[in-house]
Amino acid sequence: MNKVTFTLAYLAELVSAELKGDESAEIDGLSTLQAASARELTFLANPAYEKYLSGTSAGAVILSPASAEAYAGNCLIHKNPYLAYAQLTHLWDSNNVDTFEISPDASIDSAAQIGEDVSIGAGVRIAAGVQIAAGAIIGENSVIGRDSVIGANTRVYPGVFIYHGVSVGSDCVIQSGAVLGSDGFGFAPSEQGWQKIAQLGGVIIGDRVEIGANTTIDRGALENTVIEDGVILDNQIQIAHNVVVGKNTAIAACSAIAGSTTVGANCVIGGASGIAGHLKVADGVHITAMTMVIKSLDKPGVYSSGTGVQPNSDWKKSIARLRRLDSMAERLKKLEKQLNSNER
Amino acid sequence: MNKVTFTLAYLAELVSAELKGDESAEIDGLSTLQAASARELTFLANPAYEKYLSGTSAGAVILSPASAEAYAGNCLIHKNPYLAYAQLTHLWDSNNVDTFEISPDASIDSAAQIGEDVSIGAGVRIAAGVQIAAGAIIGENSVIGRDSVIGANTRVYPGVFIYHGVSVGSDCVIQSGAVLGSDGFGFAPSEQGWQKIAQLGGVIIGDRVEIGANTTIDRGALENTVIEDGVILDNQIQIAHNVVVGKNTAIAACSAIAGSTTVGANCVIGGASGIAGHLKVADGVHITAMTMVIKSLDKPGVYSSGTGVQPNSDWKKSIARLRRLDSMAERLKKLEKQLNSNER
Amino acid sequence: MNKVTFTLAYLAELVSAELKGDESAEIDGLSTLQAASARELTFLANPAYEKYLSGTSAGAVILSPASAEAYAGNCLIHKNPYLAYAQLTHLWDSNNVDTFEISPDASIDSAAQIGEDVSIGAGVRIAAGVQIAAGAIIGENSVIGRDSVIGANTRVYPGVFIYHGVSVGSDCVIQSGAVLGSDGFGFAPSEQGWQKIAQLGGVIIGDRVEIGANTTIDRGALENTVIEDGVILDNQIQIAHNVVVGKNTAIAACSAIAGSTTVGANCVIGGASGIAGHLKVADGVHITAMTMVIKSLDKPGVYSSGTGVQPNSDWKKSIARLRRLDSMAERLKKLEKQLNSNER
Repeated sequence: MNKVTFTLAYLAELVSAELKGDESAEIDGLSTLQAASARELTFLANPAYEKYLSGTSAGAVILSPASAEAYAGNCLIHKNPYLAYAQLTHLWDSNNVDTFEISPDASIDSAAQIGEDVSIGAGVRIAAGVQIAAGAIIGENSVIGRDSVIGANTRVYPGVFIYHGVSVGSDCVIQSGAVLGSDGFGFAPSEQGWQKIAQLGGVIIGDRVEIGANTTIDRGALENTVIEDGVILDNQIQIAHNVVVGKNTAIAACSAIAGSTTVGANCVIGGASGIAGHLKVADGVHITAMTMVIKSLDKPGVYSSGTGVQPNSDWKKSIARLRRLDSMAERLKKLEKQLNSNER
Repeated sequence: MNKVTFTLAYLAELVSAELKGDESAEIDGLSTLQAASARELTFLANPAYEKYLSGTSAGAVILSPASAEAYAGNCLIHKNPYLAYAQLTHLWDSNNVDTFEISPDASIDSAAQIGEDVSIGAGVRIAAGVQIAAGAIIGENSVIGRDSVIGANTRVYPGVFIYHGVSVGSDCVIQSGAVLGSDGFGFAPSEQGWQKIAQLGGVIIGDRVEIGANTTIDRGALENTVIEDGVILDNQIQIAHNVVVGKNTAIAACSAIAGSTTVGANCVIGGASGIAGHLKVADGVHITAMTMVIKSLDKPGVYSSGTGVQPNSDWKKSIARLRRLDSMAERLKKLEKQLNSNER
Repeated sequence: MNKVTFTLAYLAELVSAELKGDESAEIDGLSTLQAASARELTFLANPAYEKYLSGTSAGAVILSPASAEAYAGNCLIHKNPYLAYAQLTHLWDSNNVDTFEISPDASIDSAAQIGEDVSIGAGVRIAAGVQIAAGAIIGENSVIGRDSVIGANTRVYPGVFIYHGVSVGSDCVIQSGAVLGSDGFGFAPSEQGWQKIAQLGGVIIGDRVEIGANTTIDRGALENTVIEDGVILDNQIQIAHNVVVGKNTAIAACSAIAGSTTVGANCVIGGASGIAGHLKVADGVHITAMTMVIKSLDKPGVYSSGTGVQPNSDWKKSIARLRRLDSMAERLKKLEKQLNSNER
């Protein structure tokens, strides 16, 4: 991590926080309540950590107005401490690119357009017709196919593979190993086996979208696959052809969305969930991890499926009983009948 | 997309369809029934879309003989409209490589054999003993290890990593990020921890196989991992060592097949399914999405597992009840006993 | 595979096995009991294969003392035949790198430190501050970010993407497509959408760790993500930020561990399992494949979840009944009440 020092007063101003305590205190970095030292800033957002507040050695703490009342040390008072912390993390990110340069070891087609202050790493391959907007960073060994567009200030990490005809908005982050615009899984059955259907649509990615490592987003069959503004996708997610993911939806790692499904805005999809094809998921739906969505979800709310972990011996019994549920139901019905005829 | 124009007569002949209407009508591209314009061709394959037929603005529609009867516009009559559409998509695929060239920025070992009309992108690394057959295309930054073979007209997209001793047949398509021939997960437990077992087998991929983005196929332990002719694998599939996948089987995204399992021919495996190791799945088995296969499936048919999505509050009740099934069964048994002794 | 020949005496000594039979017998390779020829060595470890022993054509067999008694042919007697086999596989691994060289087509920052006998493939990109220890091998087109460390004799296969500030121990193997140090999935909700939290922690990988193809390991938010010595990770595993995986734990393909979860030492996690965030899994826990872990597991033992595969028609019934369990329980309660009041 970089050794970068700021005064508490500077940090308070940056996030519009109220400062209580020594405004000239110097801060070298961020840490947790438990581990922070006297030159580090920390925060309290989750009530479960409140117990660590009184014992922290931190130079200062970002606190809500309520928590700040009981705290005697230096603090930045903010109505949303987690958000203030999120904003400050970028000050200490050693990963910022400070000089923009285009590597002589990149291959850039002469018919590509490269904006101002663009950074292109060694081994990058950029095809004809590609447009890279100002301030974008393309990491080493990434490949960008014909006529694709990368928006302003978007960061593409090393080893990202973007096919032809893919449009990525501005201020996006695409982690390594992501593949955008690969062929949708479209085949027609025939007597000679599967006949491949050329995938003629593209992929449209909005602004401020995050795409995780090794996530794959297929191009559309005829129309486009669409990821709207502000969507955040974790690692190893699979987005099939013609899926639409609505604005500001968050999807956790290893989830998969099958072809032509539309997911609404402001949804939260837990990790390793699966959503079948040709469905509609309403705005504001929250799906817990590992859920199997096999019908459309028309209303906002929390949805789940699956059976949670059990000791293996209990699980075996549950499963065996589950298979005998039908006969249990029959027996119950018979008893009811018997009892009712007895009583008559 | 390319602006490429064909007459309806030409298209009809290409797919051996009967033409009804204006044979000189010009077609610039393909679209859906709802979105097609007067210079576009569309198709009706799924009965659910029949309702859009009468209102389509398409220049022409590919129809079955039955659907064509009631349609007054231009049409191509074919017994399998979806297949005819699939064949025609390739006319408008802007992704065709038209000139074959070998990039000076590729590293090709002098002991590799490169066939006629092969295209090799910048940054490709080809080891000694590799054979690339005529017409194959190797995308930018892909790596092919020692003694591997790529068949005629096979297309390897950018960023594919093929280890040594992997054989890929002809007319295959391998999407970006796929890894073929990585080590199978073989380790012997010992007092010093896990002892790695060198994986001495290879990978054999048949002809006309599709391999999706970020799919991984491990090499065999002693014998080979085998993907037979005509198999289609979607994105992010995991094929473990010594798996055999039979001819024309289709596997949807994010499924995983554990070591030494044999999947038969003409199977359809739904997305995010898992098949445990050392099992046999018969020819013609259809497994629905997210199924957990923990025993061999000896007969063709449709198989499933899992509990579908519910509102979270209902799910919590279902799960709680599932855990109490055992006691419910006991109570039911007791009631039966009681009732029968009452009656005696 | 290489044609490499050893005498049985040599092989016996190498693994400290007792030799019974012709010590000058020549062995060209390894095979299975069923397929081995007269110049091949095989082994019997799994009792299920005992039936093939008497009919094997192998030149020699690695056997336990018990199995060796009944076998008349050449054999190497070892208390752990599978371990002896594991050790010998490396003799025939055609994948060994024998000459160490640094490709002129690699880009290595002048402020990187490269140890003795290091091998670096074409297209590798190594940033400033990187340290590669003696005997390490970096495969073609891999990228290593600023200040990262690769330990002695570690093998990084082609197309591995390692971010800045990642430390990999010695004697590790990292398969193609793996991504180490990508950003953890950390975002603060705000009125303007998701605010990205810079991920300031790193990744620490111990010694003798195996990382499978296309596996992703995210960097920590403030502290590090940690994979301890001797851990083996299969393909397409997702390790989120601040996860700790304990010594010698084995995780099968396609499993995912969510943020801040600690998995103990000597665990075995079956394929496609998911472990939710902020949990603790004790040492010695065994989780079967496709299990959904949504609470901490405090004691060693075997754990499971999920409903195994059924014919689709039976499954539909099970699911329907599962949804009616609540009403079944009510009916059962009513019957009990009724019967007891009758008896009173």
